[in-house]
Amino acid sequence: MTLLRDLAAALGAAGCLTGADIGAGAVSDASGTGRIPPLALLRPASVNEVSAALEICHRHGVGVVPQGGMTGLAGGANPQGGDVALSLTRFAGVEEIDPDCQTITLRAGTTLQAAQEAAAAAGFLLPVDLGSRGSCQIGGIVATNAGGVRVIRHGMTRDNLAGVEAVLADGTVLSSLTKVVKNNTGYDLRHLICGSEGTLAVITRAVLRLRPLPGARATALCALPDFAAVLALLKQARTHLPGLSAFEAMWRDYVLASSAAAGLQLFPDPPPFTVLIEAEGSAGGLDAEFEAMLAGAFEAGILSDALIAQSQAEAARFWTLREGHALDRMFPGLINLDIALPVALLDDYATACGSAIRARFPDAHVSFYGHVGDMNLHVAVGLTEPSEAAAHEVDRIAYDLVRERGGSVSAEHGIGVLKRDWLGHSRSAAEIAQMRAVKAAFDPKGVMNPGKVV
Amino acid sequence: MTLLRDLAAALGAAGCLTGADIGAGAVSDASGTGRIPPLALLRPASVNEVSAALEICHRHGVGVVPQGGMTGLAGGANPQGGDVALSLTRFAGVEEIDPDCQTITLRAGTTLQAAQEAAAAAGFLLPVDLGSRGSCQIGGIVATNAGGVRVIRHGMTRDNLAGVEAVLADGTVLSSLTKVVKNNTGYDLRHLICGSEGTLAVITRAVLRLRPLPGARATALCALPDFAAVLALLKQARTHLPGLSAFEAMWRDYVLASSAAAGLQLFPDPPPFTVLIEAEGSAGGLDAEFEAMLAGAFEAGILSDALIAQSQAEAARFWTLREGHALDRMFPGLINLDIALPVALLDDYATACGSAIRARFPDAHVSFYGHVGDMNLHVAVGLTEPSEAAAHEVDRIAYDLVRERGGSVSAEHGIGVLKRDWLGHSRSAAEIAQMRAVKAAFDPKGVMNPGKVV
Ligand SMILES: Cc1cc2nc3c(=O)[nH]c(=O)nc-3n(C[C@H](O)[C@H](O)[C@H](O)COP(=O)(O)OP(=O)(O)OC[C@H]3O[C@@H](n4cnc5c(N)ncnc54)[C@H](O)[C@@H]3O)c2cc1C
Ligand SMILES: Cc1cc2nc3c(=O)[nH]c(=O)nc-3n(C[C@H](O)[C@H](O)[C@H](O)COP(=O)(O)OP(=O)(O)OC[C@H]3O[C@@H](n4cnc5c(N)ncnc54)[C@H](O)[C@@H]3O)c2cc1C
Repeated sequence: MTLLRDLAAALGAAGCLTGADIGAGAVSDASGTGRIPPLALLRPASVNEVSAALEICHRHGVGVVPQGGMTGLAGGANPQGGDVALSLTRFAGVEEIDPDCQTITLRAGTTLQAAQEAAAAAGFLLPVDLGSRGSCQIGGIVATNAGGVRVIRHGMTRDNLAGVEAVLADGTVLSSLTKVVKNNTGYDLRHLICGSEGTLAVITRAVLRLRPLPGARATALCALPDFAAVLALLKQARTHLPGLSAFEAMWRDYVLASSAAAGLQLFPDPPPFTVLIEAEGSAGGLDAEFEAMLAGAFEAGILSDALIAQSQAEAARFWTLREGHALDRMFPGLINLDIALPVALLDDYATACGSAIRARFPDAHVSFYGHVGDMNLHVAVGLTEPSEAAAHEVDRIAYDLVRERGGSVSAEHGIGVLKRDWLGHSRSAAEIAQMRAVKAAFDPKGVMNPGKVV
Repeated sequence: MTLLRDLAAALGAAGCLTGADIGAGAVSDASGTGRIPPLALLRPASVNEVSAALEICHRHGVGVVPQGGMTGLAGGANPQGGDVALSLTRFAGVEEIDPDCQTITLRAGTTLQAAQEAAAAAGFLLPVDLGSRGSCQIGGIVATNAGGVRVIRHGMTRDNLAGVEAVLADGTVLSSLTKVVKNNTGYDLRHLICGSEGTLAVITRAVLRLRPLPGARATALCALPDFAAVLALLKQARTHLPGLSAFEAMWRDYVLASSAAAGLQLFPDPPPFTVLIEAEGSAGGLDAEFEAMLAGAFEAGILSDALIAQSQAEAARFWTLREGHALDRMFPGLINLDIALPVALLDDYATACGSAIRARFPDAHVSFYGHVGDMNLHVAVGLTEPSEAAAHEVDRIAYDLVRERGGSVSAEHGIGVLKRDWLGHSRSAAEIAQMRAVKAAFDPKGVMNPGKVV
């Protein structure tokens, strides 16, 4: 094939793998739903090589699937039949840390963890943080606008993105690696590329914002009688903790399952709601501020009990309860949905969604937990007989209830292929039509990550 | 004309003014550069009327200039020959404040000040704040992605924008009035409309984020020996003041002129650099934290002197020095540029720019001040014989030096018409071509604010 010959000539043998050399890693992201190997796995080692590879594929009219760390959960990096995969893994590394501007300039193939460690070594916090930090790449987190555990304080990836460099479908390099905070010179293409899941351009570099390393962190687990108390505690925490960095709520059924699965017992009898609160602050003042906030909430009858972590190990146990990885072992094929709603509607949603799923699947485990301070809820569903058809039924039940309440069917994980059926639940027909017009303006031949998002 | 007949039929007499009824206010924004009255001044009172008006103009192929409070400084709201103006002034008001989501839903014609007052009455801070607050409108601040005085803490308008509703050139309503923080469902059209200066769509409603009202605010004016000390103080302030809400630096020539013009004397002999620092925090802890930070900087030799405001009136005097409105009276036709650069380059830029302008205009007043914590610098130039040609020469000198250093020729004020010649100084040819493709995807007939931005 002249396509593969052209690509091998442009990228060299190490940059263009075919056949068995491709390996299983390029077939599916962490959703485990990919089945089709790509025609070739391209591994460019420079922006020029990314540009050359895209120009060749564009000329041949072949689809290109950008791949980062393959930790995505929406199937966005899975090849479809006839696509070439393009991995940024060989274009990695920290290019610059600017302590005055508080920025870090990164190649797209750098893992998030490597970037975090470089920032910390220079005395800064890179605030974006996810469970997949060891594998996910800067290109991937920008392409998916990843969220993670500290959004309430530091925002999503886009809120920490100062500049971006990307290569368009035809090989044009679009470079905007600015460090400045303010730049009102024309349209903000950066925010369009961020979150486009590889369908508009291949991200090659990014400038992310850093913050001073927090001097101290405080963590507590609180027991609450009802959801009104959860909202009241959120208000207190926002008002009295300027460094509030996590506000995670867990409904009782979730705590029962997660603590059993992980062998943790934190409150003797799990209360209706358990909230994990974390705040960052100065070594001198944080503890007093944190305890005063909790004491105030206790006196106001908002909390019935609270455990303040006395060590990092204890804080880690609170987070283990919240992360709930043990649930995956307890319920093979666990379905985990990621929705967002105006915060006051979350409990009403949980009640409606729990009973609707149980009405259809009487023996199912259904439980709720999430970044409630960010209005983000996870729905965990363990079916006794998991199947693709059953999972789709669960999706429909859960997402129909999201649509009724004007929420988002994908708070963090994106649309990829797995949520394409539900995009219209959160975005209007006019919005989707306008997204398609934007897609055509970037990629008239439709070769960038075909079949994804729109 | 059938155009005017159709518009009058759709909008009624109060919604479609012509001839002398239009008034001078629709001819120019605050830059004072507009000369041409619009064909008609449309004043729709609902989203349906905005949609009907746009559909009619689109059908007739007539340009539409969206107008807010007309406080813009880039000529973006000035009609060009043959355009119709569309003002949002009659579509005003606060629609909802959601205390749990911490959001306010506003009609585009609401003034910023009315929105701030409604938020404060509900116990919240609407963090976007500009000098033009009494007149500028929500539609205008979103369309220009306005900055203002608290960007270092709360970000630009886009950082506070949860949702937006806008009407496209052909009358299609694009509504995304979401309150949620996380919504990774397709492309982020919100951030494209924000900052597009009326060239992509007419903004009709916005959802902005609120914060808890700060319990206390502390303000100080600091004297520093050199620019390295300014950078060192910025680092201390970022590290020790989590609520740092302003970091404004003034070069000596600026302080001399501004204090003389305003009749203020703050430091007996103005030091090389004067920095205004402001922080927000809790009533209990802020003062101690603030004084400790300043004392530490003094001991480290970063500051030579500091005045802590003992009253709101004293803080207001510090801000009067910084705002420098009195300079306008001292130098009629004062040129005020608004650039951004990586922060460490600002003093080198000021030196180069000052000498280049003085080399060409030996008697000119040239001075520097700005939101240095946001990397944003103002260049004030008073010419003895102001003229349009001389102003253009000053622009070229100042912006060429920005381009050499990879900065932004418009940190806050946008491109409009007045900065169109300089867009290419901050954005590459590939970026501008891509902006034009996006423009065509939104407005293929080119009727939205023709001749502006791209
Ligand atoms: C244990 C675990 C925890 C997680 N926690 C979170 C969480 O808290 N929050 C969250 O938001 N997500 C989370 N995720 C999902 C996932 O980690 C993120 O979406 C991550 O951003 C994906 O990065 P990646 O490099 O692995 O991208 P990939 O999976 O390789 O790709 C994801 C998408 O981005 C595109 N893409 C990748 N690289 C580029 C590039 N250079 N240019 C253009 N497009 C590109 C792909 O085409 C695909 O559409 C988690 C996943 C796991 C497995
Ligand atoms: C005293 C003073 C202080 C200022 N301080 C600052 C500051 O600190 N920071 C800053 O960023 N700016 C500042 N400005 C500039 C100006 O106030 C802002 O740009 C403001 O956002 C403009 O709002 P407006 O409603 O007056 O818009 P207008 O001047 O009416 O319009 C500005 C642009 O937005 C478009 N537009 C207006 N409304 C809509 C709408 N509903 N839909 C689509 N497009 C629309 C117009 O077409 C035009 O291109 C200042 C101006 C003055 C006079």
